[in-house]
Amino acid sequence: MSEFGIKLNSAHPPRGQVRSRPTMRDVAKRAGVGIKTVSRVVNKEPGVSDDTKAHILCAIADLGFRPNISARDLKQGKTKSLGLVCEDLSEPFQSCLIRAVEEVAIKHGHMLFVASSAGDADREQEAVQALSSRQVGGLIITPARSDPGRLATALPKDSSVVFVDRPAPGLIGDCILADNAGGIHAAVQHLTNHRHRRIAFIGDQPNLFTQTERVDAFRHALQERGLPVDDRMISMQRPDPVTAAATLTDMLNLRDFPTAIITGNALCTFAVLHGLAGQKRRPALIGFDDFAMADLLDPAVTVIAQNAARMGELAAELLFKRLSGAHTGSQTIRLATRLIVRGSGELAP
Amino acid sequence: MSEFGIKLNSAHPPRGQVRSRPTMRDVAKRAGVGIKTVSRVVNKEPGVSDDTKAHILCAIADLGFRPNISARDLKQGKTKSLGLVCEDLSEPFQSCLIRAVEEVAIKHGHMLFVASSAGDADREQEAVQALSSRQVGGLIITPARSDPGRLATALPKDSSVVFVDRPAPGLIGDCILADNAGGIHAAVQHLTNHRHRRIAFIGDQPNLFTQTERVDAFRHALQERGLPVDDRMISMQRPDPVTAAATLTDMLNLRDFPTAIITGNALCTFAVLHGLAGQKRRPALIGFDDFAMADLLDPAVTVIAQNAARMGELAAELLFKRLSGAHTGSQTIRLATRLIVRGSGELAP
Repeated sequence: MSEFGIKLNSAHPPRGQVRSRPTMRDVAKRAGVGIKTVSRVVNKEPGVSDDTKAHILCAIADLGFRPNISARDLKQGKTKSLGLVCEDLSEPFQSCLIRAVEEVAIKHGHMLFVASSAGDADREQEAVQALSSRQVGGLIITPARSDPGRLATALPKDSSVVFVDRPAPGLIGDCILADNAGGIHAAVQHLTNHRHRRIAFIGDQPNLFTQTERVDAFRHALQERGLPVDDRMISMQRPDPVTAAATLTDMLNLRDFPTAIITGNALCTFAVLHGLAGQKRRPALIGFDDFAMADLLDPAVTVIAQNAARMGELAAELLFKRLSGAHTGSQTIRLATRLIVRGSGELAP
Repeated sequence: MSEFGIKLNSAHPPRGQVRSRPTMRDVAKRAGVGIKTVSRVVNKEPGVSDDTKAHILCAIADLGFRPNISARDLKQGKTKSLGLVCEDLSEPFQSCLIRAVEEVAIKHGHMLFVASSAGDADREQEAVQALSSRQVGGLIITPARSDPGRLATALPKDSSVVFVDRPAPGLIGDCILADNAGGIHAAVQHLTNHRHRRIAFIGDQPNLFTQTERVDAFRHALQERGLPVDDRMISMQRPDPVTAAATLTDMLNLRDFPTAIITGNALCTFAVLHGLAGQKRRPALIGFDDFAMADLLDPAVTVIAQNAARMGELAAELLFKRLSGAHTGSQTIRLATRLIVRGSGELAP
């Protein structure tokens, strides 16, 4: 920063040169003041004149001094940061949730560090350990597995945790889930109201908690209405356009082909929409999760929308309550979903 | 984890109870071994029998002991992690880039911590300081401002940095940018090949580096072809559907209304697509950045696609080279864009 007289291009040591980190003592020497005065400025304590402060800030900038927050905060117990471990931060639902968590964190003067598990228990364990050992104040986690044993060993005993989107049975911490069953029941109801009786479900991998809840609810909702549950009309696999196209071809070539489809998440909806492009039959469609452009497709896509932003906000608020000591124990909160009617879910059988 | 005999539900201290973190000494006592043996197991050093190791791991799990990596790694210099500071991790281009960085980090046995600046220089400074003080091995940054003075003061002098998407003039570190001008020139060329002569540009806020590069290239490309540059056909503002609709109404009501539109990024494309929904005229459209569903809209959307994944991969690879000492100095790399022809960019004037 030019006002501090830094030469920006000299900020890097020559190759191979080992250089020790400048210390508070170096800053004090350069500014011609005592270490205590430097410490006051670094820790934003009062009692230093503006003039002296300016000198010290100059010295800090010139030397590239950085207060060693890790060491300092270790003494103080916790640093002002939260950690979040998700499955895939490029997935729209999760990135929306993360952003909401971040907004609350900022309001509380906390940084948010995000790491992803890719649904892998090893990586999740590593991420939780790496964040915990860096003294994050609390953690928000989307557990990678329904059996959270590995997660249990990674979490320090005194950690404050909130789980989102998937539970961690046996672990202490609040848990915020979508009302997956409620969303599916509303979708089935909507389709039967439009006279559909043969409905297919195309979901993601069955080892995912949300997918299991959704497909179970799907079976249950059909049974409740006296409709047949036909396993040839239920597909649970990692979504991609090619397999989705093959699955759709199989289903739509059945003598009793489905006249409507419900998907398990937005990636499944994308795969189904691409898969339908080459089909002659156009079944009705209700997708789980809303997505950008859903309203501009033809027909516009009817969805079961989750409130990802509210889920993230609530998770962060509960975590801060927990950190403040105002809240302990475990509670599970289910957030309602909302059916957004746009056209694809209202096509006739 | 049940094999270690942890009682999952007792992992949390009662409310208000202050409990000290278990130490290596506690583990040694519980396992009935010396501290040195515990230290060997914690640091994955050889020379401990499988039996003793099992005992120690049990004690570690029972007590909830976590080696204090921050303190340990402070001694060792650096921990195995990278930090990434982006503007908005929920934006598709950035989340795709982050994911690619993460893949390379994992291959190198590093964790990736992500924090976002929301384009705010204060938050960027805070994020960089928070990550640096937690001893991340290197940083990948999308600078929030074209004047990186604040960033310079936040970065430790000996830090290894790679900048992506936007440069940080005067700071040392590699910089990976898209060939913004090349992408815009190709789009203008494509539209003029389809006989368009009145082309509008709808971009994001003009203080963003990429937006400035793109609109400058746009003006230049028109001039090169002897086409008029009409400021009424250039709009640079934070994209949202309502203002985009108003902007489009103004432009399309001009006597010499534009017959084609180029957008500045995916959010602008979304806003324009929503804004066009209420218009009688349907200008040709080329969007900067590809997006999910672009191929399923009617007409499918022709785009200037950036290779976000390659940008992230390259950034991470260069950062690891830099960390290994095999690479110093600053280089700027421009990644080519690709015009993907789908229909909207080929509509006749």
